[in-house]
Amino acid sequence: MSIYADNAATTKISKNALETMNKCAENCFGNPSSPHAHGQKAFSALYSARNVIGTLIGANVAQEVVFTSGGSESDTQAIMTGVAYGEKYGKNKIISSSFEHPAVLNALKHVKTKGFEVVLIDPDRDGIVKPEKLEQVIDENTALVSIMTANNEIGTIQPIKELCAVAHKHSALFHTDAVQAIGHIPFSAKEMNVDLMSASAHKFHGPRGVGILYVKAGIQPSKIIYGGHQENDSRPGTENLPAIAGMAAALKDSVLNMKQNMEYVSSLRKKLTQQILTLPNVLLNGDETKRVPGIMNFVFEGIEGEALLLMLDSRGISASSGSACTSGSLDPSHVLKAIGLPDGLTHGNLRLSLSEENTEEEIDEIAKAIIESVNKLRSMSVTWNEILSGKRKSEIESAK
Amino acid sequence: MSIYADNAATTKISKNALETMNKCAENCFGNPSSPHAHGQKAFSALYSARNVIGTLIGANVAQEVVFTSGGSESDTQAIMTGVAYGEKYGKNKIISSSFEHPAVLNALKHVKTKGFEVVLIDPDRDGIVKPEKLEQVIDENTALVSIMTANNEIGTIQPIKELCAVAHKHSALFHTDAVQAIGHIPFSAKEMNVDLMSASAHKFHGPRGVGILYVKAGIQPSKIIYGGHQENDSRPGTENLPAIAGMAAALKDSVLNMKQNMEYVSSLRKKLTQQILTLPNVLLNGDETKRVPGIMNFVFEGIEGEALLLMLDSRGISASSGSACTSGSLDPSHVLKAIGLPDGLTHGNLRLSLSEENTEEEIDEIAKAIIESVNKLRSMSVTWNEILSGKRKSEIESAK
Repeated sequence: MSIYADNAATTKISKNALETMNKCAENCFGNPSSPHAHGQKAFSALYSARNVIGTLIGANVAQEVVFTSGGSESDTQAIMTGVAYGEKYGKNKIISSSFEHPAVLNALKHVKTKGFEVVLIDPDRDGIVKPEKLEQVIDENTALVSIMTANNEIGTIQPIKELCAVAHKHSALFHTDAVQAIGHIPFSAKEMNVDLMSASAHKFHGPRGVGILYVKAGIQPSKIIYGGHQENDSRPGTENLPAIAGMAAALKDSVLNMKQNMEYVSSLRKKLTQQILTLPNVLLNGDETKRVPGIMNFVFEGIEGEALLLMLDSRGISASSGSACTSGSLDPSHVLKAIGLPDGLTHGNLRLSLSEENTEEEIDEIAKAIIESVNKLRSMSVTWNEILSGKRKSEIESAK
Repeated sequence: MSIYADNAATTKISKNALETMNKCAENCFGNPSSPHAHGQKAFSALYSARNVIGTLIGANVAQEVVFTSGGSESDTQAIMTGVAYGEKYGKNKIISSSFEHPAVLNALKHVKTKGFEVVLIDPDRDGIVKPEKLEQVIDENTALVSIMTANNEIGTIQPIKELCAVAHKHSALFHTDAVQAIGHIPFSAKEMNVDLMSASAHKFHGPRGVGILYVKAGIQPSKIIYGGHQENDSRPGTENLPAIAGMAAALKDSVLNMKQNMEYVSSLRKKLTQQILTLPNVLLNGDETKRVPGIMNFVFEGIEGEALLLMLDSRGISASSGSACTSGSLDPSHVLKAIGLPDGLTHGNLRLSLSEENTEEEIDEIAKAIIESVNKLRSMSVTWNEILSGKRKSEIESAK
């Protein structure tokens, strides 16, 4: 048995996206910058993919879509665009949240070395960054506000439109890392009014190594890679056309089927959540409803996340503890710390992330495996036995 | 009829590379950073691809291979690594050549804003940068020397081992943009002793959007993208595994078949060159023998490159004038300027770049089309008629 429940780490490319890539590699192999027939065929395919993607993400014009190598590059370039904006207008403060993806947080660490002040807002315990909190720290010195659309570890959705309005009131640019949102929930750059947005194809059954940086018309993106004049002079390098075409196909499928996918995946998530919550001393992290359909994150008191993952893995179930980008590290989850979980609980989390390819049977199998594994691990756990015997207070009970 | 003679702009992906990508996308779709079975299968494929590529480029250890999104990213990261090295050791000079790819030249323009002095050596008229010239400008303040292995517009091969030895004598790092060389001519990082090397898969029948940055063990590459700890903490982002596996397959094929490919493609190039040189007042740019097998570049006196390209395109032949990365620009070729061609001749160049997929029949067809087109264009050209009637002196004759 093999069940994949780690779709927030990466998804399997769809048949349609793969076929589109293959056709493009075969038929449009010229360099889109070349003026000859082979090049112009490729240019035309690139133009068409940009239009499709522009429409699907609610760009004002297709030229607002810049193709990058993925989410980390898009995030880095977005942050550096905020830095350039700040340098141009004499502002040197950037506001973000403490539970962003490492791409944003590490780009911000770098930005500090360039004389910028970085302020990180904590989300509330429900995993949501409140616009009022942004109001408290923003001022006219703020160049950029960067808040993710959906958190990658706990799945909560942020009030982007409202946060963006606060940023604009203070003439700051607004960027959102929408890597876990695009293709999963409705998103319109125009409606949200964001200035910058990052997305990554492999999170919505598109290919690896390709992403989107949305840049509102009128804003000049900073370069982080140097070279030719591709992507309207903002991202050099021969365009990764087959992957871009594959991404357009995957996004089209995701958006066209979004309503039924959301309903189906949400129903799977709710079913799984219900079954898991039959265990005692388990916490679902983040608001129960304001979340992307597929992502859920639990803390099982008295259990190390890694041990649970190993037991699930031995039963053919792939899940995760924190994000793949931070795995291998023994540090507690920065996301769970950010939402205010006590230290003792930040090591033991399990992230399950479903897609429309998961089945009801798989959900039952996952629930059964988790319940049995948690019970087995707890039977061996000193902490848990102490809690049961009243020697130690339940942290989840105190934290609730 | 459709003849592709623009392989220096991009090549068509090989069947084997495409199949490898497809298999990988289907079977190894997990995130290599995930500790579960799906992730570990992907990790294992990534490990294997790194070993294959490490062996094929003559790395000392596979960990010297960093996977990037392509040549421009690799070049940018290499230059920024030189900057960090300089900052660490109190050196603020970088030496390169005036006919590098825009990725290197534009990264160097950026570097100037960071307080670095940039010295560009001109290649000689034969398109080769002489180690003696490097000796004249290098000093102990030099942090990095960056010279390309093969020029992308004229195809000449540089004496990398000798240039690198000069750099090392002065404790400078040495980088080579080997984008047009890897897969086409023998290259061993160990033998050349380079510290940094850039390559791009789509130049050797591999996929788009993936490249190599070779970084000698002991040198810490500077980050230009921020995020997770992938690629030994030097290049964040979920690894583009299908493309990486496809690149390994393409490079393996290129290296295993290199001897016969070099012989065959060289024979095509020589045949085409001979036929083209039957035209009067034509110049082959760059040394006749010290060049990669497939690239040749001609100047036809009295003719604008764009006009010739259009005529060839109308006959189904895809060639180029300068590189795809600078096309669209009406500036004269910086490469032809660098090798000292007079201004009047830097606009009229034609680059033909062949691969092992071209046939002898195609070569005859290309030669015929060029000869007829040049004759037709010259018959309409005021300049040419002036030269013929003795009113104007032939620039090629004076320049020879």
